[in-house]
Amino acid sequence: MKLSPQDEAAQWWATAVSHIEPGIIELRDRPVQSLIGSVGIVETTWLLLRGDLPQPREAALLEAALVAGVDHGPQAPSIAAARMAATCGVGLNNAVATGVNMLGDTHGGAGQQCVEMLNDIRSARETGDDWDGAARTVMAEWQNRSRYLPGFGHRFHPVDPRRDPLLSLVEQAVTDGVVPGEHLQAALAVERVLKARRERARPVPMNIDGATAVIYGELGFPAPLARGLFVLSRSVGILAHAWEETGQGRRNKGPIPRNVLPARLEAGPAAVEARGEGTHGAF
Amino acid sequence: MKLSPQDEAAQWWATAVSHIEPGIIELRDRPVQSLIGSVGIVETTWLLLRGDLPQPREAALLEAALVAGVDHGPQAPSIAAARMAATCGVGLNNAVATGVNMLGDTHGGAGQQCVEMLNDIRSARETGDDWDGAARTVMAEWQNRSRYLPGFGHRFHPVDPRRDPLLSLVEQAVTDGVVPGEHLQAALAVERVLKARRERARPVPMNIDGATAVIYGELGFPAPLARGLFVLSRSVGILAHAWEETGQGRRNKGPIPRNVLPARLEAGPAAVEARGEGTHGAF
Amino acid sequence: MKLSPQDEAAQWWATAVSHIEPGIIELRDRPVQSLIGSVGIVETTWLLLRGDLPQPREAALLEAALVAGVDHGPQAPSIAAARMAATCGVGLNNAVATGVNMLGDTHGGAGQQCVEMLNDIRSARETGDDWDGAARTVMAEWQNRSRYLPGFGHRFHPVDPRRDPLLSLVEQAVTDGVVPGEHLQAALAVERVLKARRERARPVPMNIDGATAVIYGELGFPAPLARGLFVLSRSVGILAHAWEETGQGRRNKGPIPRNVLPARLEAGPAAVEARGEGTHGAF
Amino acid sequence: MKLSPQDEAAQWWATAVSHIEPGIIELRDRPVQSLIGSVGIVETTWLLLRGDLPQPREAALLEAALVAGVDHGPQAPSIAAARMAATCGVGLNNAVATGVNMLGDTHGGAGQQCVEMLNDIRSARETGDDWDGAARTVMAEWQNRSRYLPGFGHRFHPVDPRRDPLLSLVEQAVTDGVVPGEHLQAALAVERVLKARRERARPVPMNIDGATAVIYGELGFPAPLARGLFVLSRSVGILAHAWEETGQGRRNKGPIPRNVLPARLEAGPAAVEARGEGTHGAF
Repeated sequence: MKLSPQDEAAQWWATAVSHIEPGIIELRDRPVQSLIGSVGIVETTWLLLRGDLPQPREAALLEAALVAGVDHGPQAPSIAAARMAATCGVGLNNAVATGVNMLGDTHGGAGQQCVEMLNDIRSARETGDDWDGAARTVMAEWQNRSRYLPGFGHRFHPVDPRRDPLLSLVEQAVTDGVVPGEHLQAALAVERVLKARRERARPVPMNIDGATAVIYGELGFPAPLARGLFVLSRSVGILAHAWEETGQGRRNKGPIPRNVLPARLEAGPAAVEARGEGTHGAF
Repeated sequence: MKLSPQDEAAQWWATAVSHIEPGIIELRDRPVQSLIGSVGIVETTWLLLRGDLPQPREAALLEAALVAGVDHGPQAPSIAAARMAATCGVGLNNAVATGVNMLGDTHGGAGQQCVEMLNDIRSARETGDDWDGAARTVMAEWQNRSRYLPGFGHRFHPVDPRRDPLLSLVEQAVTDGVVPGEHLQAALAVERVLKARRERARPVPMNIDGATAVIYGELGFPAPLARGLFVLSRSVGILAHAWEETGQGRRNKGPIPRNVLPARLEAGPAAVEARGEGTHGAF
Repeated sequence: MKLSPQDEAAQWWATAVSHIEPGIIELRDRPVQSLIGSVGIVETTWLLLRGDLPQPREAALLEAALVAGVDHGPQAPSIAAARMAATCGVGLNNAVATGVNMLGDTHGGAGQQCVEMLNDIRSARETGDDWDGAARTVMAEWQNRSRYLPGFGHRFHPVDPRRDPLLSLVEQAVTDGVVPGEHLQAALAVERVLKARRERARPVPMNIDGATAVIYGELGFPAPLARGLFVLSRSVGILAHAWEETGQGRRNKGPIPRNVLPARLEAGPAAVEARGEGTHGAF
Repeated sequence: MKLSPQDEAAQWWATAVSHIEPGIIELRDRPVQSLIGSVGIVETTWLLLRGDLPQPREAALLEAALVAGVDHGPQAPSIAAARMAATCGVGLNNAVATGVNMLGDTHGGAGQQCVEMLNDIRSARETGDDWDGAARTVMAEWQNRSRYLPGFGHRFHPVDPRRDPLLSLVEQAVTDGVVPGEHLQAALAVERVLKARRERARPVPMNIDGATAVIYGELGFPAPLARGLFVLSRSVGILAHAWEETGQGRRNKGPIPRNVLPARLEAGPAAVEARGEGTHGAF
């Protein structure tokens, strides 16, 4: 059947996320007025991304992950850039976009990769291995491709203070039958394998990307949405920092105090990061 | 007192939003682990922006405003651009940033301007006028500068379905002493004045920017944060649309079906929008 | 006449900049193959923005302005942000976009404002004033609105090394009848007025925004294109810095060395920039 | 040797691209005033990216590639998004950034991949194969990973009008000893192999990404700079379109005329692009 040109344009932009007609706004087929005041922003986020509403305990787990990731201070490049943007005479939305634009593969993407790795470990275990064996196999594959193991280790925090409260919530949710617990098992196995490898060395515990990846995985989110949800979470901190900077009255804020002149870069081999078994977290 | 260079750098990036040390993450002086699982994302947003936690009823009002603005479909340029970006081989964060970057003065900024206008009406009333008189005065000033009255009218919806549920929540909150109700009075006065002006014409009711501006104003947010909070809200819809588009498998999606060739633009006076007393909403 | 839906879509995207059909690419009605190898990038830029080709001497002036603005080092927030973005796992295009996004009203917009001011001075002079009188009048109006005078003064350079070579080229072009010289006169008048005001103080000479604004104005570009052309120019430096940073091997580069922890921001009045009569330049 | 904190900050931002001191701006160790009026923007771009100045014939080749890529009309998502952004109340720089941000792996990245593929073919040939054999081997590897062959084929143009003039310039440069001609040989071999594969089918000629990749490769640019240079080139068209749209007076321009409502997306398998041996070009 051939579409009319108008229908072709309508189909070109077809979407199941929302439906708008004069006087009508439906989000996933629900009138928006049925959501306002009745359904929270976390549930609405789940609804738009997945098409249905979560159970309250599922929403609570997701909310904890979103709260945990809101901010990690101006040493995170996304936060610093948003603060600098706020001094350059652009809108607050442009400042936020500047920060969000930097949550790339290494800054906000570790959670996505960690969900993939935990999914791989689950699959490896289904073929007969125990959790630790499955973790060892999959970790070897990942470390073959990169020296960073997404979601584990932090170049700044010896222990990430967000790990324990997040994992406690997942453990309770497993006990109560809210989530199956397989991503949790996979992640704990990675920690055990890392610990066994380096008995006397500084441990390499799960970081925020790892702990939230457990939650996103347990809740059934596809791996790329781990980055997407982190974007929503970190946008809160980016906005708060951009707004605070706006109130400081600076213009064209550079990265370092004005009296410091960047040095001349000497030729030679490029600097490389100090080696380490784990990753640093996404900040 | 002269600062050491290291202290200068530390001061250059000083912030009250968060404090990070090895093993420590404090958000507005609260350890992050005291928030995870205990405090919701709406409360955390308020905390980061303002430094304290809201009362539950205040958080509920803010949450309703955030839910109301999440999406308005692909005819909104921000949504369309994010969907197109998602087909161009960039990260999901870059797609979201592309959409957020477009929530500018006319797309996401009407709420900010509306808070300013409602603030102006409140001030005008304090000088002795009644609400309708104050509204008339301030509206005249605004319409002197622009034919758009921020927060009122919509080029698409004869009645914005988000208005009534939002205003009902504000009315209830005023009744219960949660908020003072002055921004609500100011906004209703604008509606009355618009109605009186054009008795037999199509009415120009409050749109989403206006109804959420009432909430942001009642809750004491500075006007620019009306845009900032809208950014957080609309990011949810932007993400959901970018993600859906990712699953469609298109590459380099253009704005119209591929068989349609853009026409040659004829010389002559630039096209202008159809005149109208109200504004269109921010979508 | 009512358009068909397909024609409506074609009209919705109508443009005079380019025309594309299968096998055909026309830029401003010229086949692209007639430009490749025959016409330079500066001429092509002029062609796309204005619809005709410049005279060689006009193109040379424009090219000098574009060369002058390419870079001002990593203390410029746009450059710093692009370098940080390049370490976050995003594409090189995303890193460049991050920098360009920050060339806002105060970072890249001073040239635009300076063209407007010079246009105002030209108009004021046409009503009978001499150049210095016209400058005084218009400067008073601008300084009434803002303490910054766009295009004059620099918080870093006592004398901007780009001023003299750019103005020499304009003077020569005026002598040779290439451009009328009125924007040059207006800008020199501003310098004289500033000098007279503060005889014994540090002078406030034209900066890069001012000197390029003279060129853009002389060549007949509308003021907003002063920012647009600066964007093209600075994109070169942004790209070069992002690319150099890519080779350094850092991940998630923050604004200051990792051992420096941002301080706690003390409550109190917001910091303000040191007062000064002129502006700092756009870097 | 331990650095002082101030030196650490200076080293943190060390760069060889430019050096700035009060009154001094050096680009790759050359005073900016020695470039203004003497050296063109193409040469300056080469200088900033590579540290030296090109020969005039090298600059001419690079300039031809930059001119060829400036625009491909509003069906390119980057152009469309920039035009929409220009109607949303953001700065012209934000509109350009919006477009540049979308020149990702599939929209602007094909040139980068094509340089890599041509480099691979050169290496394969050095092991003893002839050009066509080397091309067949490398093409098989690439098509094993993706059905798109970067730089060849176009879903829109049966023949890309930019191919012939660009390749003619390269051929002439090879004849004159300006460039070695190996990337050209590699690319022509790919065309021959594609032609032999599908004797009676529509041919799959080099597109703009392929033809410019030949130039970037011949000139010795690393593959990622193929994307970087395309960004500079396409920024010209993005700016011209954003500026034209600004003059049209629209507000919040959506992707399709306002009377068309996006359809409801039916559940089911995601749409996929029509299969084809070649790629579409980057537009």
